Amino acid sequence: MSRSLLLCAAALITALPALAAPLDDEPIQPIPVSRVSDPGMVELGKKLFFDPRLSRSGLLSCNSCHNLAAGGSDNLTSSIGHRWQKGPINAPTVLNSSLHLAQFWDGRAPDLKTQAGGPIANPAEMASSHAQVVTVLSSIPAYVTEFKTVFGTDAIEIEQVTRSIAAFEETLVTPDSRFDRWLKGDAKALTETERAGYQLFKDSGCVACHNGPAVGGNSFQKMGVVEPYSTRNPSVGRMAVTGDPDDRMVFKVPSLRNVELTAPYFHDGAAATLTQAVETMGRVQLGLTFTPEEKARIVAFLKTLTGRPLALRLPALPPSSDTTPRPRPFEE
Amino acid sequence: MSRSLLLCAAALITALPALAAPLDDEPIQPIPVSRVSDPGMVELGKKLFFDPRLSRSGLLSCNSCHNLAAGGSDNLTSSIGHRWQKGPINAPTVLNSSLHLAQFWDGRAPDLKTQAGGPIANPAEMASSHAQVVTVLSSIPAYVTEFKTVFGTDAIEIEQVTRSIAAFEETLVTPDSRFDRWLKGDAKALTETERAGYQLFKDSGCVACHNGPAVGGNSFQKMGVVEPYSTRNPSVGRMAVTGDPDDRMVFKVPSLRNVELTAPYFHDGAAATLTQAVETMGRVQLGLTFTPEEKARIVAFLKTLTGRPLALRLPALPPSSDTTPRPRPFEE
Repeated sequence: MSRSLLLCAAALITALPALAAPLDDEPIQPIPVSRVSDPGMVELGKKLFFDPRLSRSGLLSCNSCHNLAAGGSDNLTSSIGHRWQKGPINAPTVLNSSLHLAQFWDGRAPDLKTQAGGPIANPAEMASSHAQVVTVLSSIPAYVTEFKTVFGTDAIEIEQVTRSIAAFEETLVTPDSRFDRWLKGDAKALTETERAGYQLFKDSGCVACHNGPAVGGNSFQKMGVVEPYSTRNPSVGRMAVTGDPDDRMVFKVPSLRNVELTAPYFHDGAAATLTQAVETMGRVQLGLTFTPEEKARIVAFLKTLTGRPLALRLPALPPSSDTTPRPRPFEE
Repeated sequence: MSRSLLLCAAALITALPALAAPLDDEPIQPIPVSRVSDPGMVELGKKLFFDPRLSRSGLLSCNSCHNLAAGGSDNLTSSIGHRWQKGPINAPTVLNSSLHLAQFWDGRAPDLKTQAGGPIANPAEMASSHAQVVTVLSSIPAYVTEFKTVFGTDAIEIEQVTRSIAAFEETLVTPDSRFDRWLKGDAKALTETERAGYQLFKDSGCVACHNGPAVGGNSFQKMGVVEPYSTRNPSVGRMAVTGDPDDRMVFKVPSLRNVELTAPYFHDGAAATLTQAVETMGRVQLGLTFTPEEKARIVAFLKTLTGRPLALRLPALPPSSDTTPRPRPFEE
């Protein structure tokens, strides 16, 4: 090895951050990098995710409410659906949603595939139907070819549509946040304030619900444990699924990954800022009144949970054919 | 040079298409590749183009009606604006729009920068105001930093916003269509039918208006030269700009680049398919009745004008701060 190469190698080693051992006993774990098992299905699912022809109007796509340029949500209190209808609940981010135990705030969909079929056919959201989506896609030659390549069948089925969208969504994980780098042993990845915020987050009991790789998303919990949560939003939560009155106001604990990007917060979108969200959570879930300094510390920690941006390439949607049913944005 | 390398080189030469000399005397020229003069401004403009916070509702961005995944338009007869208002005219594609002599169907904006300010403040489109957009962007720390890096000033100005969007849009050119490869001398880039379609396109007189690198976009012409164009769309065209009654129903000739992707056609979006558009144009502009075979031939040629897809990376929009004014989608 030449002397200059040796010098390079030495410089490289010096430049690496001082890595301690990974922190294995923390209640939060780093996000695993997503593994793409079927790149063709993921690419097809990406097209479908961005395709407004899945809606009756031709305006709304999955990406309208789960905007991948904006943290995978729409940053609205509740979403805007077909003909500007006001949605019933705050749109959760699609980022890292594959790590959740179930989908929707009330967990009524067991997986992403089932979830994907919901908004397409919801008259207040994309307002199409599964049959109509199959008709539209089957009229677009490039889609027919792509579905055949991925699934090996001649006829497009809605189950293939939702499976492809889910396969794409499974790739939407955001590893490499500063917090994850710290968990992996890079002591300098967090500031002192951020570390203090994490300590307070643990000591106050937030981690009881917000834990695991997604910092949430892995349990259902009552909104308003210590003090009833006051809201004008009519959602009853998990009771709608189980029928059990004890499940009233029980919701899936949202993931706090990328929470800096996904305001406003809670199922009703009532907390406009992270500071408000921390204050309300402390009060109604834990019976705590955080000081302004404590809130600032926790918020500083929460902002370290923003992962590496997705760096997605916008798909090129295949053109409609002469037989493709046209969008109907202004008809009832 | 080794024998195997020589063989490789020989194979490479054989694999290249047989290039004749470029066709220099054609009425259509290849699209020049865009030159990015200020990458920082282009990147900022891309963020702004995709940012729904430029609208009052927080739902609509430039990309809502000029969808870069779908040929730079929305494939709707007329666009959907704030509170689902029906737009007055078909949204033209933003692709290759920098090659146009002016912007909007009636050419009322001399350039892309002027155009970009329009929809933002139009109550029927994005329904914000220039002052509000500046307030919103100035409340987002990462934008303040980025504007300062690009423009060297502390305060964000609307002129910087529109200039950045225009700089991004100038990069949205789509070279390398099959037709351009043919123009450059690759005789095999077009089929016999497509070449026959181009010949008919020229012989029929379509090139009188659809010429130049954008195959249009470089003149204003009357819609309905030979026969009045019948439409329910109330637009008067260029008369709205000049006040001259002779300019009634005079519109900018649209570019035919990527026309396969931008249905429906005409300022009123009345032609749902390329075949219909060719039929109508032949009749009202040229006094010709094309046979079905002739229409198919011209349509085959038009589909060779689809350029290389953009391959854009979706931007990561910076998060709002606690002081960012919130979207107001459901207020009057």
